[in-house]
Amino acid sequence: MNTRDTKTAIIEAAITLMGRVGADGFSASALAAEVGVSKATLFHHFQSLDEIPIEALGMLTGEALDFDLPDNAGLPEFLDAMGEMAFGFLDERRSFLNAYFTFVSKAMFDPRLKAKMQASLNTAKAQVRELINNYVDDETRARDLTNMVMILLDGGMMHMMLLENETEVRAMWDQFSSILCKEYGRENSN
Amino acid sequence: MNTRDTKTAIIEAAITLMGRVGADGFSASALAAEVGVSKATLFHHFQSLDEIPIEALGMLTGEALDFDLPDNAGLPEFLDAMGEMAFGFLDERRSFLNAYFTFVSKAMFDPRLKAKMQASLNTAKAQVRELINNYVDDETRARDLTNMVMILLDGGMMHMMLLENETEVRAMWDQFSSILCKEYGRENSN
Repeated sequence: MNTRDTKTAIIEAAITLMGRVGADGFSASALAAEVGVSKATLFHHFQSLDEIPIEALGMLTGEALDFDLPDNAGLPEFLDAMGEMAFGFLDERRSFLNAYFTFVSKAMFDPRLKAKMQASLNTAKAQVRELINNYVDDETRARDLTNMVMILLDGGMMHMMLLENETEVRAMWDQFSSILCKEYGRENSN
Repeated sequence: MNTRDTKTAIIEAAITLMGRVGADGFSASALAAEVGVSKATLFHHFQSLDEIPIEALGMLTGEALDFDLPDNAGLPEFLDAMGEMAFGFLDERRSFLNAYFTFVSKAMFDPRLKAKMQASLNTAKAQVRELINNYVDDETRARDLTNMVMILLDGGMMHMMLLENETEVRAMWDQFSSILCKEYGRENSN
């Protein structure tokens, strides 16, 4: 593997490992074994173990928001796609979500990770806000709607992970979406 | 202290300690020092260290839902009170929220803690559902509304902790509340 591939492999293994064993089992030895490299190789690519989850987080957020939306999608289609993006992960990539909530919890006690999570979340919010601006003109209302959508998706993933109630959370999201479409559906004449 | 007081003191110290240092710094030695007792005393009251966060969680959830609502409160007042209960904690009891999200993250990897969190969350949801039944008759709509409220509050607390954006989250909640009152406000003739 070249340097770039090794670095990516380390970050991907960090996500897999943290998703499987949580923050407690995340050590340099365990990670080196997961990647199949030596600890020296790890520390050739990263100055400290803490940097790896921080890099991993950027990759996680980028993957989460990587979904396609048809050009002429309306608010209902947009909300459907967002729900599918968030809740579809539970089936496909449970370890992704485990890792995400492990990062959230670690960030409370780690100012550098917290700053990185803030940057990632704010980037994600800006992307969603840009899409929402297609449906809602008013600045304040667009900001509130962006927060509602992001917060309900994050909270919904957390509840699904804890309560294993995917059907209920998806039904809640559909109901939420239909209420929002009534409220915001005809604000923008585009 | 009598036995009951000591047990309560241990649980309260566990919340304080976990809120301050996170799951990583939570050890029998640190907890014994926090309470001002010996490790032997800890293990007189609890069979294992893991049991303490589980007991603490029950106490946390009970405290969170301990708020008064006037008898004749309508849906707007109810949603206000729920928002104040959840978001007011950030000012007063930040360590409570740190501990809560630490538990969430640990529960992903600990089936016993997960089962306990499920029981606590389901108890909390049942309490909120009972209140919501005063405003919404239809079973499915009451279930969806309960999930929306609980999930948006949990997610909102998480975003506030990470992004330090209390004003924005509170504005989002007010907007959400006004949309819900339009949607559900006149369903029940009580």
